[in-house]
Amino acid sequence: MLPFDAERLQRVMRAHHADVILATTRHNVRYLTGGYYLSFYARAPRFGGGQYLSVVGIPAAQPESAFYVGRQDGVLNEQDYIDAFGPFWIADRRWITRGPSMTAAAAAAAAQALRDKELGGATIAVESSFLPADALDALRSGLPDASFINATPILGELRAVKQPAELERLRQVHQVTAQAIRAVLAEGRPEHTTRQIAGMVQRRIEERGAGFLYVFTNVGPGFLRAPSSIQWGRGRPMHVDAGAEMDEYIADIARMGSIGAPPALAMDLFTACLDAQERIRGAVTAGLACRDLWRIGTEAVTAGRWGRYGRFLAHGLGMVSHEPPEVAEQSRGTLEPSMVLSIETEYLHPDAGHIKTEDTVVVTPTGSEGLGDVAREWCTVPAA
Amino acid sequence: MLPFDAERLQRVMRAHHADVILATTRHNVRYLTGGYYLSFYARAPRFGGGQYLSVVGIPAAQPESAFYVGRQDGVLNEQDYIDAFGPFWIADRRWITRGPSMTAAAAAAAAQALRDKELGGATIAVESSFLPADALDALRSGLPDASFINATPILGELRAVKQPAELERLRQVHQVTAQAIRAVLAEGRPEHTTRQIAGMVQRRIEERGAGFLYVFTNVGPGFLRAPSSIQWGRGRPMHVDAGAEMDEYIADIARMGSIGAPPALAMDLFTACLDAQERIRGAVTAGLACRDLWRIGTEAVTAGRWGRYGRFLAHGLGMVSHEPPEVAEQSRGTLEPSMVLSIETEYLHPDAGHIKTEDTVVVTPTGSEGLGDVAREWCTVPAA
Repeated sequence: MLPFDAERLQRVMRAHHADVILATTRHNVRYLTGGYYLSFYARAPRFGGGQYLSVVGIPAAQPESAFYVGRQDGVLNEQDYIDAFGPFWIADRRWITRGPSMTAAAAAAAAQALRDKELGGATIAVESSFLPADALDALRSGLPDASFINATPILGELRAVKQPAELERLRQVHQVTAQAIRAVLAEGRPEHTTRQIAGMVQRRIEERGAGFLYVFTNVGPGFLRAPSSIQWGRGRPMHVDAGAEMDEYIADIARMGSIGAPPALAMDLFTACLDAQERIRGAVTAGLACRDLWRIGTEAVTAGRWGRYGRFLAHGLGMVSHEPPEVAEQSRGTLEPSMVLSIETEYLHPDAGHIKTEDTVVVTPTGSEGLGDVAREWCTVPAA
Repeated sequence: MLPFDAERLQRVMRAHHADVILATTRHNVRYLTGGYYLSFYARAPRFGGGQYLSVVGIPAAQPESAFYVGRQDGVLNEQDYIDAFGPFWIADRRWITRGPSMTAAAAAAAAQALRDKELGGATIAVESSFLPADALDALRSGLPDASFINATPILGELRAVKQPAELERLRQVHQVTAQAIRAVLAEGRPEHTTRQIAGMVQRRIEERGAGFLYVFTNVGPGFLRAPSSIQWGRGRPMHVDAGAEMDEYIADIARMGSIGAPPALAMDLFTACLDAQERIRGAVTAGLACRDLWRIGTEAVTAGRWGRYGRFLAHGLGMVSHEPPEVAEQSRGTLEPSMVLSIETEYLHPDAGHIKTEDTVVVTPTGSEGLGDVAREWCTVPAA
């Protein structure tokens, strides 16, 4: 039993004319193995003169003849980690030992596996914006008759439709992130700089058991989003737009607040953000063309009094931010059940600042469902 | 004023016949810029169909004509982050915009910079076990007359001698890590599995403001170091060997403990670990040949009653674990003041388990100094 939709993988690989996929990034190795990655290197891949690299190889025609390349030597036996993880569907496991280039050695082992399986002349999809250069050189030299294409769009399309356990993980990380942002806004003080706010967001995310990824901060008026020495002050709109992860699944959420009552203009713009979110969510449903969603979202934000300051963006979200489905004027895809979208509605007004809300929904057969609808309202901190 | 030893960089580059160095990993970009890295991508480099890549390019002959490639567009203006960071010694900054391959675009911008500086035919050192394959392809295509060599040994030799601020950071992260391990051992219970212990180590490291990297756990007898469902139990030796980081600087520490009194054999082996550590530390000093340290360490561990179970390892440590200096039988280097060494002394005894201690020292002109000498003694938890 494969831990992903093998039929979808085969279909997407055929559409991209890929005979074999070689996954090498941490998130895609986890996705294809059903959650496994060697923990020693998961957060510290660099080591000695290079870095760790594992490979999951899957032939489109015969997924059951997939192979795995990991590391096995006197100091670190990866098989121990696989045993501790539990059952692992790929039986053909190959090992490299610690050496001057673990990346080139792993790639050479993958090339050998493909020659063993008589796939030396295949079209091989590799994660070319991630695969180390010396690993691709080793593949090219070990497989002189092969052609190489980019695996990232294939794996993105495969992952676009989420399984129930993935949706549960996304729900959890979004709720934790929304709670963390709320906690930080509520404990803010006028003298806090946006750099301090950023540090507080990291701590509040980590103490809830998620991994901190990034945070944008803006104090209006002004559009600077980089955490800096700017202080929050009183009556100034603050947006916190943060990313976090749990087991590779990413949350992306933006919330607003102020110390004391916000300016009426900022609140008007915030109401416009929420109204646009409602209109867009009301339109999201399985079967909607992505380009139609783009049009509906753009109209929702740019219609009305503040339209000329408005900006709309929707993007797929899962193990990667801005993964498929793509929502743009020229998109050719269609929303499917269990796809996940982050929806951003925002107004950049010179007299108010960057007023924004961002939330994530899962597409259902008949509509959509919020994954992190926690503390969406404006957070007004009592002014001392 | 460059934030690193420019004279050392030039010397090492000349020894490797490199005309230009292109640094692209997060840690080396931080090292060469004096601490800067775009925070949005620091923990979440993957984005859309690719990942973020920045480049620091330094010509050996003219370090002052160095250049930087980052990202600047309507959504994310890296210059804002550089301004918030503070002064940045590289004035020639070039920007790419979000696109299908940020990695190839950054490499193409670097190739253009090198052509502008009439270095199109140079020998260019790239981090070939890290640089994405499509970025090297873009460099090759933009610089058809250039030669490419591996930058990792060059940057490793450059970083091997630490500056005072780096030593302070290493001291801090080692002390935090030693305290975290001690706290976990002290709160251990017989029913805790090594997987639970691993999770506790992560939390205790993070709550002290460091980043968790990895943890090995062993309950003796038996040599398994992968966190698993094995319970600690009573009177069984546990080793916790953990890695953590602060601002890219890595700690690597191993400590021992048991619930109730440990077996006498385990304590004998532990005493042998500490005795060997003392002998080795007593030998470490500037001017010592690395291969002599290897010989002294090996003798210290393999002499005496438990010698045939003993293992010795010393490795450089800083932004990378197992970075230069190399300490091996054939090493040709010599210890210099402000180099940093992690020293591992261990006994793998079938009746006791994997008994180990690991600590980090900085080489001084006349000896060495411990960086994380906190709670080195065996931790005996009172049995309930």
